[in-house]
Amino acid sequence: MTSAKTQPARGMRDFLPEDVRKREYVISVIRNVYERYGFEPLETPAVENIETLLGKYGEEGNQLIFKILKRGVHEQTGEADLALRYDLTVPLARVVAEYRDKVPRFFKRYQIQPVWRADRPARGRFREFYQCDVDVLGSRSMSVEAELISAASVALSALGFDDFIIRLNHRRALTAILMAAGVSLEQHDQALVALDKLDKIGRKAVQDELQERKVGQAAADQLLDFFVELGSLDHAAEIAAGESRVEKTQALNAATLGRVVEFVGSNELGAQGVDELRAILDFAAAIGAAKRIKVDPTLARGLSYYTGAIMEINVKDLPGSLGGGGRYDGLVGMFLGQDLPACGFSLGLERIIVVMTERGMFPATLLTTPAELMITVWSDDSLKESLSLATELRKEGLRVDLYPEADKLGKQFKYAASRNIPFVVILGDDERSRGEISVKDMTTGEQRSINRSLAAAELRRALSEREQNT
Amino acid sequence: MTSAKTQPARGMRDFLPEDVRKREYVISVIRNVYERYGFEPLETPAVENIETLLGKYGEEGNQLIFKILKRGVHEQTGEADLALRYDLTVPLARVVAEYRDKVPRFFKRYQIQPVWRADRPARGRFREFYQCDVDVLGSRSMSVEAELISAASVALSALGFDDFIIRLNHRRALTAILMAAGVSLEQHDQALVALDKLDKIGRKAVQDELQERKVGQAAADQLLDFFVELGSLDHAAEIAAGESRVEKTQALNAATLGRVVEFVGSNELGAQGVDELRAILDFAAAIGAAKRIKVDPTLARGLSYYTGAIMEINVKDLPGSLGGGGRYDGLVGMFLGQDLPACGFSLGLERIIVVMTERGMFPATLLTTPAELMITVWSDDSLKESLSLATELRKEGLRVDLYPEADKLGKQFKYAASRNIPFVVILGDDERSRGEISVKDMTTGEQRSINRSLAAAELRRALSEREQNT
Repeated sequence: MTSAKTQPARGMRDFLPEDVRKREYVISVIRNVYERYGFEPLETPAVENIETLLGKYGEEGNQLIFKILKRGVHEQTGEADLALRYDLTVPLARVVAEYRDKVPRFFKRYQIQPVWRADRPARGRFREFYQCDVDVLGSRSMSVEAELISAASVALSALGFDDFIIRLNHRRALTAILMAAGVSLEQHDQALVALDKLDKIGRKAVQDELQERKVGQAAADQLLDFFVELGSLDHAAEIAAGESRVEKTQALNAATLGRVVEFVGSNELGAQGVDELRAILDFAAAIGAAKRIKVDPTLARGLSYYTGAIMEINVKDLPGSLGGGGRYDGLVGMFLGQDLPACGFSLGLERIIVVMTERGMFPATLLTTPAELMITVWSDDSLKESLSLATELRKEGLRVDLYPEADKLGKQFKYAASRNIPFVVILGDDERSRGEISVKDMTTGEQRSINRSLAAAELRRALSEREQNT
Repeated sequence: MTSAKTQPARGMRDFLPEDVRKREYVISVIRNVYERYGFEPLETPAVENIETLLGKYGEEGNQLIFKILKRGVHEQTGEADLALRYDLTVPLARVVAEYRDKVPRFFKRYQIQPVWRADRPARGRFREFYQCDVDVLGSRSMSVEAELISAASVALSALGFDDFIIRLNHRRALTAILMAAGVSLEQHDQALVALDKLDKIGRKAVQDELQERKVGQAAADQLLDFFVELGSLDHAAEIAAGESRVEKTQALNAATLGRVVEFVGSNELGAQGVDELRAILDFAAAIGAAKRIKVDPTLARGLSYYTGAIMEINVKDLPGSLGGGGRYDGLVGMFLGQDLPACGFSLGLERIIVVMTERGMFPATLLTTPAELMITVWSDDSLKESLSLATELRKEGLRVDLYPEADKLGKQFKYAASRNIPFVVILGDDERSRGEISVKDMTTGEQRSINRSLAAAELRRALSEREQNT
């Protein structure tokens, strides 16, 4: 008998009970908020036909897709016909095309499932991770963007976050800025990949990367100068005293959009982008989400399918974002054969959990014990009675663990203590002859006998008393 | 723009909102029961290192594993280094070996996650499907088998099943029976694969398959004769009148075990197996689960890792089982390097849902609407006010959909009706000038104006009234 390798696969994680309970808590809070916004749940398979996924995420994305070998006699060809989903957006686009008669005209769905990327694992970056997506399909109204921003904000607030910022930009405004800086159209995708890293790696590194990606020196300089100048607006607003946070944010956003308009001049794409951003800000103000939003013309978002507004949520002490999204009016059309406007937002469950854990944001009540009480086993003869009592108490809704075999009583107590089980029940020979059970409170050490027929009622009373005391 | 293939991959399924709600209902009921038994949640990655999975499921299993191509420059080798998990048992064994210091001595875990098998798809058989597993590691006591049977029974009862039977057998008893029939030891695995199909394909087909699998004619005949004779015991018990169901079941089980003892003679494995089955029946009687259990010496279970008791749950109108499990004392040792007793039970979520759907077993309250009310949009000018009202009502906990753009009011009503949303709110120019909103009850057609500031309270009242009336 040899001992095999027992770690999970590289970049993947096992979740022990305490981890699962944390994850389930976060998911349930997010789900609850999404349901209040009228979003409905969708689930799709982990595995997609490979042609569904290839070519949707740009060249960098293609390389990160886990591909599944053909089976049986075809295995030897080394070819792949299936792949693990890379995100939840492409499967959504496929679903909408496949069930166009079953989904409503405005399809508002949420989907909370894992995705897989063959990325280099790092702190907070895994090869299997959950995304919590909300998308609205079927409308070009900017109310959609505002609702998505609102839903994500409310979800984060419900989890206890109070310091996040939602960065907002528009792909058309960005295109106009690139054009105005003199970046040629065929270099835009390359430029966006580099620009997307500005907040992570800084101006110098982005400048180098732009050069590597063959963006002309003059254009790169003009672009980065403009962005640095916008940064100083930020600073100017910061020192403007005597204004409330909302007013300051709104003034800064207006100033930023003003500078974008000046910079892009008469570029029509740019004007459209800025108009849409203004509409989103206006709607967001109506729903009280405006104070969170910061217009940031440097925000690029990596994925190539965005066509309109793009957004990203950041908190101070986390490099990278807690979530992001945007409008992608073209993607669904690739499957549907006709254009369908779409806009979505994805919260990153893993990062949310990392930050919540570091900040101690999980409610204390979450750290539940595996059971409310444990029933000991006095002897082989009494095991049947312990089983029978466990059944009775479970029928009453109590969470009951049963020590599975006869053992020294001290060992059984130790076991219950090591698992933080608050009450232990003893069914010894004495107790049984008197028609009683003994209950030990593991916190106080107090032990008392109670009538067997009152067990459920007494234990429930003791448990609720304990809850009130903690 | 070309329209791509939009079906899910072969044998996989998309779950639209109504499907997801059904699945979540079943999962939450099962989870709740398992928690009452002191089981704790575990989750493991979909993807495992390929060597973790290969060789654990026999040759037939190996062929059904989805393998993942190496990435980057290694992709061209056509080799696989990862694979999708095939069940939740092997990952559990790996986890226990990896975290031996973190998991309790008796590890009781439940795990409700999808698994993948490259099986030929058929009615109720998919390539991605959920398993709901409970396992107890660390004890050889038959109380474990009894608790698992009880938990699975209670879960099925909580879902509304009242006609299921739990077939129970023991691998050692089966081995003894095969030996007594004259099947040579090296043919046992082959014989079990064929025998496992007895209830599905009948005696004649099993006889043919036994022959194909090189089990001698005489041994095959003796084996099948014995099983047919046991079937007549069943019939005899069926016609024994005047006894309760529990008594009849217990008498039949005792008679069956008696015949097994006679048939296997002095075989020590057989005696051990029968003793353990008797202990399980005894414990099951103590917890009121005995009436469900039928000892069935023909039950084989396909997987090769079982070492002790095996069980399977059947209902009348479903070929195949709703779930099954057994004791596998050797598997964890393959990872841990030392033996660890283990026993588990797996409920098949997909089949449970198929039967519940066919029988109409889902609660009526489950078919919820996507939202409790929808807010219409009177004009572009009023969109902001609709958004703001939606935000207010959601803050009060109501599930609110918002029509995303200005449109003909009739069209908006139609849309709400098609989605079964019970109340529609109108914020027209008249209403707004009076500080009111109009609410239309979509069931009665009644429409009335209410003060804007009382909107949440009034709508909540109307919703709870409606609930009481249905």
